[in-house]
This record gives sequence, C-alpha cells and structure tokens, in this order.
Amino acid sequence: MIKTQIKVLEDVSLDNPIFIEALPGIGHVGKLAADHLIDELDATKFAEVYSPYFPPQVYIGEDGLIENMVNELYYLKNQGEEERDFIILVGNTQGVSPEGQYAICNDLLDFIEEYGVNELFTLGGLATGQPVDEPIVYGAATDEDKINTLKDVEVEIRSADGGIIGASGLFLGLGKLRGMSGACLMGATPGYFIDPEAAEEILNKLSALLKIEVNTDKLEERAEETRQILSKAQQREQELLNRNMPQQDDDLRYIG
Amino acid sequence: MIKTQIKVLEDVSLDNPIFIEALPGIGHVGKLAADHLIDELDATKFAEVYSPYFPPQVYIGEDGLIENMVNELYYLKNQGEEERDFIILVGNTQGVSPEGQYAICNDLLDFIEEYGVNELFTLGGLATGQPVDEPIVYGAATDEDKINTLKDVEVEIRSADGGIIGASGLFLGLGKLRGMSGACLMGATPGYFIDPEAAEEILNKLSALLKIEVNTDKLEERAEETRQILSKAQQREQELLNRNMPQQDDDLRYIG
Amino acid sequence: MIKTQIKVLEDVSLDNPIFIEALPGIGHVGKLAADHLIDELDATKFAEVYSPYFPPQVYIGEDGLIENMVNELYYLKNQGEEERDFIILVGNTQGVSPEGQYAICNDLLDFIEEYGVNELFTLGGLATGQPVDEPIVYGAATDEDKINTLKDVEVEIRSADGGIIGASGLFLGLGKLRGMSGACLMGATPGYFIDPEAAEEILNKLSALLKIEVNTDKLEERAEETRQILSKAQQREQELLNRNMPQQDDDLRYIG
Amino acid sequence: MIKTQIKVLEDVSLDNPIFIEALPGIGHVGKLAADHLIDELDATKFAEVYSPYFPPQVYIGEDGLIENMVNELYYLKNQGEEERDFIILVGNTQGVSPEGQYAICNDLLDFIEEYGVNELFTLGGLATGQPVDEPIVYGAATDEDKINTLKDVEVEIRSADGGIIGASGLFLGLGKLRGMSGACLMGATPGYFIDPEAAEEILNKLSALLKIEVNTDKLEERAEETRQILSKAQQREQELLNRNMPQQDDDLRYIG
Repeated sequence: MIKTQIKVLEDVSLDNPIFIEALPGIGHVGKLAADHLIDELDATKFAEVYSPYFPPQVYIGEDGLIENMVNELYYLKNQGEEERDFIILVGNTQGVSPEGQYAICNDLLDFIEEYGVNELFTLGGLATGQPVDEPIVYGAATDEDKINTLKDVEVEIRSADGGIIGASGLFLGLGKLRGMSGACLMGATPGYFIDPEAAEEILNKLSALLKIEVNTDKLEERAEETRQILSKAQQREQELLNRNMPQQDDDLRYIG
Repeated sequence: MIKTQIKVLEDVSLDNPIFIEALPGIGHVGKLAADHLIDELDATKFAEVYSPYFPPQVYIGEDGLIENMVNELYYLKNQGEEERDFIILVGNTQGVSPEGQYAICNDLLDFIEEYGVNELFTLGGLATGQPVDEPIVYGAATDEDKINTLKDVEVEIRSADGGIIGASGLFLGLGKLRGMSGACLMGATPGYFIDPEAAEEILNKLSALLKIEVNTDKLEERAEETRQILSKAQQREQELLNRNMPQQDDDLRYIG
Repeated sequence: MIKTQIKVLEDVSLDNPIFIEALPGIGHVGKLAADHLIDELDATKFAEVYSPYFPPQVYIGEDGLIENMVNELYYLKNQGEEERDFIILVGNTQGVSPEGQYAICNDLLDFIEEYGVNELFTLGGLATGQPVDEPIVYGAATDEDKINTLKDVEVEIRSADGGIIGASGLFLGLGKLRGMSGACLMGATPGYFIDPEAAEEILNKLSALLKIEVNTDKLEERAEETRQILSKAQQREQELLNRNMPQQDDDLRYIG
Repeated sequence: MIKTQIKVLEDVSLDNPIFIEALPGIGHVGKLAADHLIDELDATKFAEVYSPYFPPQVYIGEDGLIENMVNELYYLKNQGEEERDFIILVGNTQGVSPEGQYAICNDLLDFIEEYGVNELFTLGGLATGQPVDEPIVYGAATDEDKINTLKDVEVEIRSADGGIIGASGLFLGLGKLRGMSGACLMGATPGYFIDPEAAEEILNKLSALLKIEVNTDKLEERAEETRQILSKAQQREQELLNRNMPQQDDDLRYIG
C-alpha cells in the first residue's frame, strides 16, 4: 500500500495527548468546530499530510494561490484544568477510495501513536434531512467507560442504528484495535449547508469532555467567514465526497 | 497486494477440518445458518480477520459501542458421528473490490490450509425474486464426487445457469486450484429480507452432509433477534454489497 | 502490480510462433472463431492463466461443476503451407480494471515472448448496431507492412475513426512497444447476440493471412452449441464487461 | 505504486528549463496551444511516457495504424530574448484513476527535476458553458510573485472560486511541494468543441510570459486539421476523461 507522506514541521514532545479528528464532512460541523478550537486556543501546526489517495486536484484559494489537498496536524499543550496536551487533525479532504481511507488512517495512527496517544475523539455531523429544532449531539464509543463519559455530558447515545463512514469511523475502529479508547461526537444538522449551531453544540460537549474552555462567541462569525473563504470548489468537493461514500437512506446519514 | 490481517486468538490443532464459509449475502441465509450453527454447537472463535479492502466504516452496535468491519474464524472439534473438526468463517462484511475479494480469499485459504483443510462448503442465498413456496437448496461443486454427495442429500444441482459471485464463489474456485473439494449450498429466498426458512433448509442439508445434528428450533427466534440486533446499517450494507457486485437479471441472482 | 498466475501444463518448444488473441467481446465473434480454430485444428492447451483482476466469481457450468475465471493458451505446430507454429489465447473473461488489463497483457506478452513470438493477430467484433447485410471484416495494424498484408486479403482498413478497447487493443499497442508486428481483425456484427457469420468471415480472413485451411462447415452448429453451452451467466458477464468498458456511441463500438 | 515507464529517446542537456504541461482537456485548448508551439518552434521529442494507469485501449489513427496511449516530452533550447530552454509535455490521454494521476505526475516531476526544472506552466481550458464574446485567459499560481507575473501580462486571476482537476492542477500542487514556482493558464471556452481562439489567447499570454514569439497565423488551420486528424475516438475519449473526473457545476468547470 502507498505510504502517506507526513511532513513534520516542528519536533514537539507531548505528554499523553488526546487526539481529535475533524476532517470535512456533512455540514462542515466537525471541521468548523475543530478550526474554531485551533484558533481560539491558538494551536500550533506541526505536520502536513499528503496522499495519492486524495482527489487528484488543487483548489484555487484567495488571490489566485493554489492549495494542495492536505490534512494538517496541530498541537496544544497544558490545556484546561487537567493541563492535558492535544493533537488535532483537520484538512480540506479525505481519501477517495476504501483502501485509501484505510491507508491514510493507519499511517496517521502509526504517527500519533509515537506521541503517546491512547484516547481520541472524532467530530462530525449527522444529517437529519430536516430542520433541527434543538441542537443535539449524538455519540458512539469504543468501550463502555467512554459511553458513560459521553452520558455524563449528556451526549445522546446512538444504539444499533447506523454506521460511521470515513475517517471519523475508521479512526475509532482501527484505534480500538490498537487499544485506544475513543468516541465520536455527531452534531445533528440538516446537512448540505455550513452549520455553526451544530458546531457550537459539538464544541460545548467536547469542552466538557476535555475539561477545557472554548469561547464560542465568534463561531457564527467564523461560519460566515468560512462560507465566504471556502471556495465553492471546496463545498462542492464535500458534496462529492458524500456522493462517493456508500449511499445511505434516511436512517443512515452520518459521514465523519 | 495488501495482506489481510489475521489476528489469531487461540492456537488450536485441528484434524483435517472441513471449512464452512458464510459471509453476508442475499437474505442473510448463509450467515444466519452459520451463526446458528456456531451457537448451537458452541463453536470457539480463534481468529479475527481485518482488511483494508473492507468498507471504510464502522457500525454502531448495541449501547453505542462501535464495531469494526471484521470476519471471524470459529472452530469445532469431534463433531457428529464421524467426529470431524470444522472451521467456520462468518463476519459482517466482504471485500468491496474485485482484487480485494481475491486478496482476502487467497490469504484465508493460505491460513486454513495450514490447519489441513481440503474440503469446504460455502453457504448463501439464491434470490428468486418471488415467494418461495417450498424450501429448496440449490448446489454446485468443484468435482463430480461432490456433486454426487450433494445429490445424496437431495440438493438440487444447478447446471450451466448462473454464477456465484463473491466469497462463496471464490472460495470454491480458488480452493479447487489448490486441490480442495468443495460445494456451495444456496437457499432459495425471495431476497431482501432475513429468511430463517431458507437458513433452516440450508442447515438441514449441511447437517446431512457433515453428519452432525443441529437443532433448528430456535432459528426463527434467532432470525427475529437478528432482525432486531442487526443495525439497520448492516442491513443496508448488505444491500450495498449487492449493488457493488456485478449486476444480475432474473436468472442470475446468486450472491454468496 | 500483482503478477498474473500462469500455470504451465506442458513444456513445449515452438518455432517463431504467431500469437492469436480472442478473449470474450462483442457478439462472441473473436472467441467463437478462435474456439472453432482450436477444435478444427486440434490445438493443445499448454497453459492456464489466473488473475486477481478477473471478476471475483465463478461460473456454474454443466452438471453443476464450477468453473474459474480463466484464460487459456493453446499451441499448434507446423500448420498450413508455411508450416508455422501458433499460440492461441482464449478464455471466459478479461481483466475488469484498467491497471488489471495492463498487468495481464504485459505478463502474457512476457510469457509468449519467451516462445519467440514477434507477430500477432487479435480477433473481435465491431458492433454496427444494425443488421449486417454482407459480412465484412475491418482491420487495423501496428505498421504499414501489416496494413498491406491486410489489404491483400481484402480486410477493410479503418482509418482515424475509433479505438480498440481491452485486450485486443492492448496486445497490439504493448506488443508494438516490444517490436512485435500485429493486426486486429474486427468482424462487423449487430452486437449482443452470438454471431457465427461474423466469426466465419473472421476465420476466412485469418486463414488467408496465416495460409492455413479451416473448415467452417460446423461453425453454425458450434454457434448453436455455444449458445446452449455458454451459461446465461457468461453471456451476461460479457454484457457486464462491455458496460465496464468506456462508453461508446454509434461510431465507436469496437470491443476486442 | 506502479512506476511510470519513461522511454528516453535522446540524451539532452538543458539549462534551467521551464516546464510546460498541456495534456488533453476541455476544448483541446491547452493541447492545441502546445502542439502549435511545438510545431512553430520546431521542438524535439526526447521522451515517451507510458502508464498502466492510462485507459486500456489504443486508437486507430490514419491509414489504420494503431496508436498507443502516450504522453510525450519535447525540448527547445535558447528560445526568445532570454535564450531559455523549455520542456513541453503533451499527449493523447491522462491517468484515469486518482492514484494514477498522482503516480504519473510524481514520476514525471522526478524526471524533469533532473533536468533542472524549477518553474512550470500548465495550460488548459475553462468551460464557460456559453459563447465566449471576448477571448480571456484565467490564471492561478503557486506564489504571489507568479501571480504578479500573470497580472503583468493581463491574465485574469481567479480567486477562491474553483479547482483545477487533473494534471494541470497536480503539477502545480505537487511541484509547489518541491519548491517549484508555477502557474496555470486557463482559456475561457464554451467547452466540448475544439477552440482555436482560446488556444491562440493562451499562446499570446504564454509568449509574453516566456518572452518568446510564436506565430499564430496557422492556428485556425491547425485546429481544422486537428478536428479532422483527431479520430472521433480521441474526441470521445476526452469526453470520457471529463466524465471520470469529479463532477462540476456551472461555476467549476475547469479541467486541466
């Protein structure tokens, strides 16, 4: 299998960091939450990830500058009341083929394992297909302890109903095989538009879980910026990724 | 080609075991039969199988616990009047690409060959597209002796009409190339719903062939449980697998 | 890339053999012609070819015996007035992915090159989409000499109009890169039914080119047998292969 | 990953050459421009490129001669007022899968890097879906300096709107990762017909950028020839490539 290319920008030593994944998915819910987290807590980018399993294209960004398809790793140190370290994975794309998803996920797990990760959270949206009256975050986890932790912060546990497709699912599953404990937070969202309310609710739950504080005042502002900054191409790319994933009907609409 | 990851849970010594394959397919006929067999005869899981050719996702199981895409190997010792050993392959998925199917099947054949397997049965459903008045099991085999063995237990031989797509076909074909003798049992089923009657008929034929006794009293109960326990995702996954397979018209509806 | 598995059944020494390819394609024209050639001239099978790029399935043949997806190599010695040797490639399938087609074709070229092949003919049908009033064989070739040879036997040269998709095209193209001289014979056929008239016309041209004699009396009979013997699955498989190939409109309907 | 096969026809020593890419894309704009450039300036072919990621087929060219799927590299020495050297990549196809695109592009970057390339231009069409009243060339680049260079010759900079799919995008993106500076010139064209006006405008901008002179008098003539010489197959192949690429709506129609 083709190796993922991980370009390390800074050698950093982390203490038992918690890993957070939020690659593009439905409603940009996970990505919006993670991008906000990175900005508010001033996280530092320490690695870039490239893969021949990404879509064969570039984006035209602001001022005509081209942007590669890329995933990025950020770190944070000594956050919150427990002074924990974090690694956050964000980016503008995911692998396009099944074996590409597996290859990238396994290579990234190899990489973060060396930093001592044994706990992880994956963030995404769960498309309801209709307006969401009250923000709600659904959850699933690798083990009962984690399920209980989710319940403590009033995440709604999904049971025997649905799958988690793409990176948000695979990081949990393949992480579990390596003995990592993890959970997925899925913010209910109508889908197909950028949803800061769902992202805010995800951030609220994540902050409670990680015992950190994240000011979400600027999230709506950021969502608006995101709407404008995100090239139309990126938005369409996301739709494309959704389309490439196994099809789903009304009861199975989660994409990580 | 990417190697299949086989995680051996127990070192076990088997005497010339017969291999039984029953991965998800039409009507969950093969899987239901094999799962029942495993439970009734109290088979022991001794290996788990993972592959980057499986769908890039996880299922949300009961109580919100995530489940990897996985195949599982069970063994049974000294069964029936001939005191034979068995290896049974079950799971919640199959490889999604042609080369994935070949890779997984060949790696598993390498694995079971080391246990001394030279005889195999694959179980599945044959979708009739209409109600099945009387349970019937169709069969095909690698050699004339096996065909005669099938006839002895009144399996209806298919002739020059149709193919066997996926694992149930490949295990026979690639096994034959290694000198293994094998047969496929296909339970007629309308398709697209979980069919305990077809599974029961498969079990009846299989019991006769293997000279074992399997109580099928609880099979309807198990089917009902299966209907409830199987996340909707898994049921849809199966439909997806069907869709990914080469398309078929009315006369060619078998998927292993 | 995954190696093609070539199982040699007989060590044979051939003198500068001409290679003839006729894998399944439109109207079974090439395959029918080559199968007839093999039977009439009593060719000997000396190798079987398996590939993980073939469709992941088996056929149920006569009497319920399963058949692997396979290509087969036959040889003939001292044929016709020039006492030439031949290698003939037939089978029940082709590779399903682009890289699979390239892998299989290159591996087979490596194989036949060791027997001294430097000339080749590929056989197929060219679907006209309408009834063919008078049998006609179209041709294309790797070099002008071969074009002239085709003209000598009144093959109608195609010019700057169309492509040759699949094995019949790749063997010519990749063979040319190795310095082999080759031509493709395409029998006009309505397509989508087994066409012995087109196959006969192909055989007439091929016999003239190879300076051999092939009795075509039994070809209609063979076509009828083929219609019956070929499982419906194989016929549908062929349609499937056609569908998997790049789509074509009325002016580009050739599949090798 | 499978290596691209690069057949070097002439050992040539170049001085810091500028690389120009123009593989088949919308309206044949880039290809037409590059083919004209090669002819007018009498460039010399020095390498041929083959890949198992190309479509598995051949074209039937003039006089029935078959043509492989191929990319070709030409060089030019001491051109224009700055006496610069150039490498030009043209061909009749692109890779068909995402990983194929990445493999071919990376292998070619490895190859041209050895000749000292650190600057590149990729040429293509940008489909407007409607008649183009006045010729316009859009641009994007890897860095601000290059953006300014484009502005100097009145190329219209695209901003945060759209992607560049296929070779024209990947060469920029993957080149940028190697420290190369590059730009893409996209000629507005209705799409789906061969457009010499768009190609001429591309050539005008490229000539200004490279400080060379290219007579475009014969471009319309060449376009007409191209229309006739290009087999229908090639035209349809292009449509096929377009279809295989991620789908685009009205605002994202660029294919390199």
